[in-house]
Amino acid sequence: MVGLGRMGGNMRERIRAAGHTVTGYDTDPAISDVPSLAELVAALPEGERIAWVMVPAGAPTHATLEALAALLSPGDLVIEGGNSYYRDDQENAAMLAERGIGYVDAGISGGVWGREYGYGTMVGGSAEDVERAMPIFEALRPEGPREEGFVHAGPVGAGHFSKMVHNGIEYGLMQAYAEGYEIIASRSDLVPDVTAVVRSWQRGTVVRSWLLELLVDALEQDPGLARIDDYAADSGEGRWTLEEAIDNAVPAPTIAAALFARFSSRQEASPAMKAVASLREQFGGHAIRRADER
Amino acid sequence: MVGLGRMGGNMRERIRAAGHTVTGYDTDPAISDVPSLAELVAALPEGERIAWVMVPAGAPTHATLEALAALLSPGDLVIEGGNSYYRDDQENAAMLAERGIGYVDAGISGGVWGREYGYGTMVGGSAEDVERAMPIFEALRPEGPREEGFVHAGPVGAGHFSKMVHNGIEYGLMQAYAEGYEIIASRSDLVPDVTAVVRSWQRGTVVRSWLLELLVDALEQDPGLARIDDYAADSGEGRWTLEEAIDNAVPAPTIAAALFARFSSRQEASPAMKAVASLREQFGGHAIRRADER
Amino acid sequence: MVGLGRMGGNMRERIRAAGHTVTGYDTDPAISDVPSLAELVAALPEGERIAWVMVPAGAPTHATLEALAALLSPGDLVIEGGNSYYRDDQENAAMLAERGIGYVDAGISGGVWGREYGYGTMVGGSAEDVERAMPIFEALRPEGPREEGFVHAGPVGAGHFSKMVHNGIEYGLMQAYAEGYEIIASRSDLVPDVTAVVRSWQRGTVVRSWLLELLVDALEQDPGLARIDDYAADSGEGRWTLEEAIDNAVPAPTIAAALFARFSSRQEASPAMKAVASLREQFGGHAIRRADER
Amino acid sequence: MVGLGRMGGNMRERIRAAGHTVTGYDTDPAISDVPSLAELVAALPEGERIAWVMVPAGAPTHATLEALAALLSPGDLVIEGGNSYYRDDQENAAMLAERGIGYVDAGISGGVWGREYGYGTMVGGSAEDVERAMPIFEALRPEGPREEGFVHAGPVGAGHFSKMVHNGIEYGLMQAYAEGYEIIASRSDLVPDVTAVVRSWQRGTVVRSWLLELLVDALEQDPGLARIDDYAADSGEGRWTLEEAIDNAVPAPTIAAALFARFSSRQEASPAMKAVASLREQFGGHAIRRADER
Repeated sequence: MVGLGRMGGNMRERIRAAGHTVTGYDTDPAISDVPSLAELVAALPEGERIAWVMVPAGAPTHATLEALAALLSPGDLVIEGGNSYYRDDQENAAMLAERGIGYVDAGISGGVWGREYGYGTMVGGSAEDVERAMPIFEALRPEGPREEGFVHAGPVGAGHFSKMVHNGIEYGLMQAYAEGYEIIASRSDLVPDVTAVVRSWQRGTVVRSWLLELLVDALEQDPGLARIDDYAADSGEGRWTLEEAIDNAVPAPTIAAALFARFSSRQEASPAMKAVASLREQFGGHAIRRADER
Repeated sequence: MVGLGRMGGNMRERIRAAGHTVTGYDTDPAISDVPSLAELVAALPEGERIAWVMVPAGAPTHATLEALAALLSPGDLVIEGGNSYYRDDQENAAMLAERGIGYVDAGISGGVWGREYGYGTMVGGSAEDVERAMPIFEALRPEGPREEGFVHAGPVGAGHFSKMVHNGIEYGLMQAYAEGYEIIASRSDLVPDVTAVVRSWQRGTVVRSWLLELLVDALEQDPGLARIDDYAADSGEGRWTLEEAIDNAVPAPTIAAALFARFSSRQEASPAMKAVASLREQFGGHAIRRADER
Repeated sequence: MVGLGRMGGNMRERIRAAGHTVTGYDTDPAISDVPSLAELVAALPEGERIAWVMVPAGAPTHATLEALAALLSPGDLVIEGGNSYYRDDQENAAMLAERGIGYVDAGISGGVWGREYGYGTMVGGSAEDVERAMPIFEALRPEGPREEGFVHAGPVGAGHFSKMVHNGIEYGLMQAYAEGYEIIASRSDLVPDVTAVVRSWQRGTVVRSWLLELLVDALEQDPGLARIDDYAADSGEGRWTLEEAIDNAVPAPTIAAALFARFSSRQEASPAMKAVASLREQFGGHAIRRADER
Repeated sequence: MVGLGRMGGNMRERIRAAGHTVTGYDTDPAISDVPSLAELVAALPEGERIAWVMVPAGAPTHATLEALAALLSPGDLVIEGGNSYYRDDQENAAMLAERGIGYVDAGISGGVWGREYGYGTMVGGSAEDVERAMPIFEALRPEGPREEGFVHAGPVGAGHFSKMVHNGIEYGLMQAYAEGYEIIASRSDLVPDVTAVVRSWQRGTVVRSWLLELLVDALEQDPGLARIDDYAADSGEGRWTLEEAIDNAVPAPTIAAALFARFSSRQEASPAMKAVASLREQFGGHAIRRADER
């Protein structure tokens, strides 16, 4: 296990709890089982190694894969479990295949709750490579029928592609709940306790879901969400999902709306709305609010 | 129980299963327990009656409430359990209050599954009226902690208001899943089996929900959804939720997008897109598709 | 002319410049031609009066119409030229018709530039009433063919309805320009002078328009729009247009998006985005920004 | 002039009308001035040539640029006037620079009307290269102040980038007019003649524009747009503009909505709306429309 952050560290524990031996490496020596990537590789028998990469997407993942390519041997297998862009997987797999090393991409969902409940797992790769890593996937996936928490979605890239769309949907779901929350909160004259209403949706309703339960948790911890800023990051998958929709001429208005709402949430000031306010002033003599009046 | 359709009929059974006596009336004599509304009322003791109205929203509900107003006595209670607009509840309650009859509005979620699993229930009304009807709500609501499947949301109107927003959220959730489904389906070259991917999201993932489980059921019954037309009705609550957002200056882009997608799905031809195609022809000499070429 | 604000005052001047006699009344004695509404009415011959109402929509317009109803005589004519909701026109007309007074609703576009260039004018009412007021409409409308700056759109309400949709479109147009402006401005590494690009679109391009010219004016006065706040009011017509779309099941995504962008621009903090940030923290342990860190 | 289609052919005529000598080449010998690209190049003096490429974007443009690279000499200049993606310009320029050939990218707007009214022209490249081609740009641009119909927007790529955003805005504008048109058309009970209303917006109003005039032309030719199908193509720039917005975290909801509306317009059936209809059937027992009932 290369990378022992919030995700990798928990996954190491869950796999160990299933009875497997896992050696973890992290650049932070305080949590690493070995002092270097080379020693991680050396700890395992040649040609039988499975290295799971769980570091931030982009340059860190790329550097890790290049380092592993140099250290591993033909017959070894790399699983890229971070949030890589699925088109990068195809390049990664080709680079490793040149050295006889297998490649599986794994999209992992479940967040900080995965260690306890298991991780929703979507993988891409050859049938042989996926089969070989199956004991790990079995350890990671949630209890219940395998096919309800794990899928071999297709060839290399299909795992991260499936996870990418999963996250795109997640954006839309969160935004839908958030809009509904705001509408109710805007009518405190009629509904004094938003939390009570959202709490009551957890059983029997059409909108019940795990995200809804988390929203209840958040509201119970901080009714009115006064503690938290209206600032929502985005981590790539939402953008990629929207780009994928564009490439395939698929209308995706809710996913786009959810992504744009996050973009807006992070702007100190909106250039577009300055332009709109300017236009109103120009044609209608409508009062504008000067930037220094805010 | 006035109205024994898909919802009212099942609710009668669930309340009876909880040990209560329920007399049902429906205009269809084949399913009605009594031949007339008057006999329904006569079957219950004056001043202790609780009449649950479960007929289509709008004119039928209005007519039923007027008929009940004439038949019931002071001290009786009416529960409007259909999908009424919450602003109508306030008028309904006033009309009945003139005759000393109480009024509770109840938003009911759960669809055809409610008989088995219980109905998510959101009610509005006075504390006294709600308390009086609590045995019925207890029979209807799902198992588990009461507050996770039932809420007394506020005064008259608050129940249907909460249910209205619930449905607005539901529109957004459904649309988000639907967009994600279409994006995956557009890449059958990479992911050959959409159903398998969606199925694998049921456990451990962030997007798991009851709606997702229903989507899996639908895809398992009809992979590719070939049997079904891309025609989605809307039943009022989505429109009202959006109007409520407008009235309160709440941005609601995903709910709007979901509603518009349904509008579009029902159009034989889009006048707007005819206009766009016309404009492209006018300025660019771009070829249009003539209506008779389709 | 009742109401001599930014619009009414300029219109009085334009009608006078066309050779007509106009008496203006305003609650502000400094600009009013007469001391009271009663004296305005008394200044004109019974049964031949045309009173143009140009006061803020809603309560002020309603109060003015009621006052006029009491003062005017059968055969007189009222023109409601403010931004009234078209459904109100039908009630206004009925109220005045009871006293034998005619009613025309007039939607007026052109803003502060109308005095010089003329006002785009859309009217609703009977053919007879419209014909009677035609000399005024002739004075107000821009030069050129009449039908390019004036329309008798239909019965009472049709004028304000047409103007309402005009404004809904205006929202969409402004937002489209604003988004394009922001996209260019986000790439100052490639396009150092946004104003120069927008300026160059004024002739020959597909996007040339009067609004574009106003955007050039705004950018020339304040490149970067540093002086202006990103705060955009909305004045009713956008909301009504969207509600009309909803009522008629017309998809209106750009008009909705433009309206929501204005709503967002006026929020100190977005409850919805607080909810989204909370959810991210709950499931992913993602860092949030605390409200006191802003 | 390489490529004498709808755009290139008209541009050749406009440049000639300004007194310049233009040799045109097209693969269609019926309209070509020379039999081959080689003869086009041979017709001009080495090192002083300016070759304007006006062929479809993508592979045809790329092939033409490669052919020209082999035929031209150091000191010559290529102007890419098609709808190339601006990121490709940077590669094209580098490829030609290796051979000492200059490169200017020119975004051209105006459609079939440009021959008569001139073409809105946005260019990118070095000051020297742009200056050298200025006589051509002068011939192409509309009458009036140069800066209102021409801009040197920045280095290579800035011309096509500006044109790309121009087209993105164009999508939003067209969609806004189209939505307004549909809303009015949905109320023929109140406004019997949509064309008359749209026609009246051409003078004095805030929404007046060239696109609006074209919409009037279209409606006058075909009231109700019965002849035309609701099928709207998209040509790349809208998608690229949206991707640019995503890359720079710019909210672009109207441009996205306009693009998605075109995607929808071309679908025989919407997989997403099949999924929504399926979900409604699953949870509510709502009737669906079977695909064979359409």
